[in-house]
Amino acid sequence: MEYPSKLIENAVEEIAKLPGIGKKTALRLALHLLKQGKEDVSGLSSALVDLRENIRYCKSCFNISDSNTCAICTSYKRDKTVICVVEDTRDVMAIENTSQYFGLYHVLGGVIMPIDGIGPADLNIEPLVSRVASSSGNVKEIILALPATMEGDTTAFYITKKLKTLGVKVTAIARGVPVGGELEFTDEITLGRSIMNRQ
Amino acid sequence: MEYPSKLIENAVEEIAKLPGIGKKTALRLALHLLKQGKEDVSGLSSALVDLRENIRYCKSCFNISDSNTCAICTSYKRDKTVICVVEDTRDVMAIENTSQYFGLYHVLGGVIMPIDGIGPADLNIEPLVSRVASSSGNVKEIILALPATMEGDTTAFYITKKLKTLGVKVTAIARGVPVGGELEFTDEITLGRSIMNRQ
Repeated sequence: MEYPSKLIENAVEEIAKLPGIGKKTALRLALHLLKQGKEDVSGLSSALVDLRENIRYCKSCFNISDSNTCAICTSYKRDKTVICVVEDTRDVMAIENTSQYFGLYHVLGGVIMPIDGIGPADLNIEPLVSRVASSSGNVKEIILALPATMEGDTTAFYITKKLKTLGVKVTAIARGVPVGGELEFTDEITLGRSIMNRQ
Repeated sequence: MEYPSKLIENAVEEIAKLPGIGKKTALRLALHLLKQGKEDVSGLSSALVDLRENIRYCKSCFNISDSNTCAICTSYKRDKTVICVVEDTRDVMAIENTSQYFGLYHVLGGVIMPIDGIGPADLNIEPLVSRVASSSGNVKEIILALPATMEGDTTAFYITKKLKTLGVKVTAIARGVPVGGELEFTDEITLGRSIMNRQ
């Protein structure tokens, strides 16, 4: 594509770096921004820079936080004997939305993906191990709530192995037919596993 | 949704103002940006501000341009007797991509949409009329290449009426079954019109 202006070309190229946004969508967004007020665009732009520059992570659970320790870790209402291990902040928000879990979290910041060059050292796995080890037996259970993919399973396996010597109970969230799911439309692997792991 | 941090909430809200981007996608994009280098985020951010602050429009055709008059308007290779009227820059780029048109353009900056409060005065229609009027008969034909929607048709009708007294030929791009389109999958209105307007 040939752009009528360097400015728009530059903006389109920057926007198209975002995941799931191609050049056509990027151009549509850029033209949309051109129609907005200058303060709207600078509002968006400074929100992004502000986020990136000033974001902090809870030093205990590595969730995004506005303070050194997040609201969940400091809450006296939460059960401090259970830690739910998740991939990222979105998973924390999803689980919080269920209102079914009252323990703490541990955000890994990703899963092991050798193809993308993400190894265990790039994730917050070591801090999890030392968090459990230094709890002097206060942490009784680790719930692995990782994606049901090969990478998620690999990460779960790695963490389970790492935690073995610490004598903490390691569980994983249940996998099976989703609530409201029709059996005939469930894929074979899920259905097969849900029969094997019947309760 | 409750966000773990004001910074992320703010960023999500700003990103979700973009058309076609909901809060879930906005959160995904915000978390993606958190994983990028600071210079990447400030690159995106400054490209957006730069675009909005410094963009210029060709004073003749109102297309986006880096100079006062755009490359198409100044090119000696273009046929200056024909002006193609389009909604926005994307349409110019789409028509340029066909390599079938060698005239000039006129970018309206939208179409008449009473529901959104966009009237003729908000578009570059008056400049088009005076552009044709002041050409002292040099402009022979106006091609209307507006969207095939009610708003596009309304705008086309309005422009045609405005140009009537100037004695310029006003045409519209052909509507019909797209190349490669199967008759059975073409909607009735398009098919009906393409029979009526057979060539």
